[in-house]
Amino acid sequence: LKTYLECYPCFFRQAVEASRLTGLDDKSTRQILIEIGKTLENFPLDANPPEMAVTIHRLVKEKAGISDPYRRQKQESTEMALKILPDIRKNLSMADDPLLMAVQFSVAGNIIDFGVKKADTFEEDITKLIHMEERIIEEEEDRFFQYDAFRESLENAREIIYLGDNAGETVFDRLLIDEIHTRNPDVNIIYAVRGTPIINDAVMEDAHQAGLQSSAQLISSGTDGPGTLLDRCSEAFLEKFYNADMIISKGQGNYESLSGTSYPIFFLLIAKCPVVANHVGCRKGDFLLLDNKTQK
Amino acid sequence: LKTYLECYPCFFRQAVEASRLTGLDDKSTRQILIEIGKTLENFPLDANPPEMAVTIHRLVKEKAGISDPYRRQKQESTEMALKILPDIRKNLSMADDPLLMAVQFSVAGNIIDFGVKKADTFEEDITKLIHMEERIIEEEEDRFFQYDAFRESLENAREIIYLGDNAGETVFDRLLIDEIHTRNPDVNIIYAVRGTPIINDAVMEDAHQAGLQSSAQLISSGTDGPGTLLDRCSEAFLEKFYNADMIISKGQGNYESLSGTSYPIFFLLIAKCPVVANHVGCRKGDFLLLDNKTQK
Repeated sequence: LKTYLECYPCFFRQAVEASRLTGLDDKSTRQILIEIGKTLENFPLDANPPEMAVTIHRLVKEKAGISDPYRRQKQESTEMALKILPDIRKNLSMADDPLLMAVQFSVAGNIIDFGVKKADTFEEDITKLIHMEERIIEEEEDRFFQYDAFRESLENAREIIYLGDNAGETVFDRLLIDEIHTRNPDVNIIYAVRGTPIINDAVMEDAHQAGLQSSAQLISSGTDGPGTLLDRCSEAFLEKFYNADMIISKGQGNYESLSGTSYPIFFLLIAKCPVVANHVGCRKGDFLLLDNKTQK
Repeated sequence: LKTYLECYPCFFRQAVEASRLTGLDDKSTRQILIEIGKTLENFPLDANPPEMAVTIHRLVKEKAGISDPYRRQKQESTEMALKILPDIRKNLSMADDPLLMAVQFSVAGNIIDFGVKKADTFEEDITKLIHMEERIIEEEEDRFFQYDAFRESLENAREIIYLGDNAGETVFDRLLIDEIHTRNPDVNIIYAVRGTPIINDAVMEDAHQAGLQSSAQLISSGTDGPGTLLDRCSEAFLEKFYNADMIISKGQGNYESLSGTSYPIFFLLIAKCPVVANHVGCRKGDFLLLDNKTQK
């Protein structure tokens, strides 16, 4: 996904919110905004938005002298998600199609995101999530929720790369991974986290807190951006990525950095911003399961 | 009102929207955003937001080679407001307190604003406005709607400067001016418009279309910003401004540029953005009638 003009205001909004979160004062935050203003020139429209996010959050982290400003928020997100995990497992055990429900919960888990939305709505989001079951269960197979293709691809997969997104969401990813293993015990699933803390995206520590090590092999993508920026990933990760039969990509950041490629990806995300919704052709807030093969 | 950090994203949003409206392509718009990025450094936090708007809209106008990009929108706004004028006059003629109702309609008319909101909601806004009568009539005297002080000030006024804001809103201003003249035929009212087209703010031509010349003496403030930036106003205007017994200031732009001064101003506006609402201490969307004497 290229950068749309509508992304520019959002860059500055993210910078202001991240600065406030780290406790930076107005003077320092203004300096960051000025720096971002100066870098716009070096940022072409065909770059994708997570690349700009790298610059924004690097500036905030440097200025604040904090390497992981969202650490506490990430820990809380994971704790809260773990707390509701037993309830969700119970729902899954009674579902007609547990895989479908696990997919839907995994997409719903993508609601936890401090990059797109303000950071103070987490509790509200989680409450929504718990009550969302009925709504998401009604989602039907259509061009924005290509579940049949996803299920079919899973049946033939031997090695899956699962690209994680936000901390907390990781717990719901674990559920989906367990469900995939139940159906296909031989498949090897590699769960990739970011290499460097960026916004509330999960790094290795966050994946461990979610217990993912007991469900999948964990790897760092090596990237410092809130997405899978292939030219910023480690060679070790890229080798796995290029050789996977199937790639499950969570969230907008991974979608923004990988849409338009030809890898065997299924994108699971909530279309959180108008730019992504317009690009996909769906409504903002839609739950998406997109087979990359069928995408423009 | 100083510039808050939250204003920065809004600067870029305004630039994108104004560029699109003038039909500029992505490449030219990106150039404008880059230019704005570079000027952030010269724009201190104690400047007020309309000053930045001057830069933004100057860049758009220059790039597009159009001196008044919102001209058609302004004409349509005024036409639509004129169309509902007879209905509103009928309501006024039956009101218990016609002055109060005229004030409320004048504030409600401030809903017409292409600076704060997207430009495509005008019809919806006007429809809301027509159905708003009951709601606004329920507004009670409180610290955000200081009607008693306003009425009292009017009784003693000999010369009033009325600072206009947006085209279309002008029609509702005319109603209020007529109502003031009904109560106090001797008062001289001078209606000020912007000196240069900026967003959809009314210039002389727009005031004429609204018929204001039959209700008030018209004057250009001489400013090129979407507010009353005193250091950018003409001397002729400033002489009137400084000598007025009472100043009626419409809209956010005038509020942003004049709040914090000690002139005998009543601010009539809708608090359209979270920054202004926070500054005033009210909720976003509130109808305000603020006596400058009582403001911080």
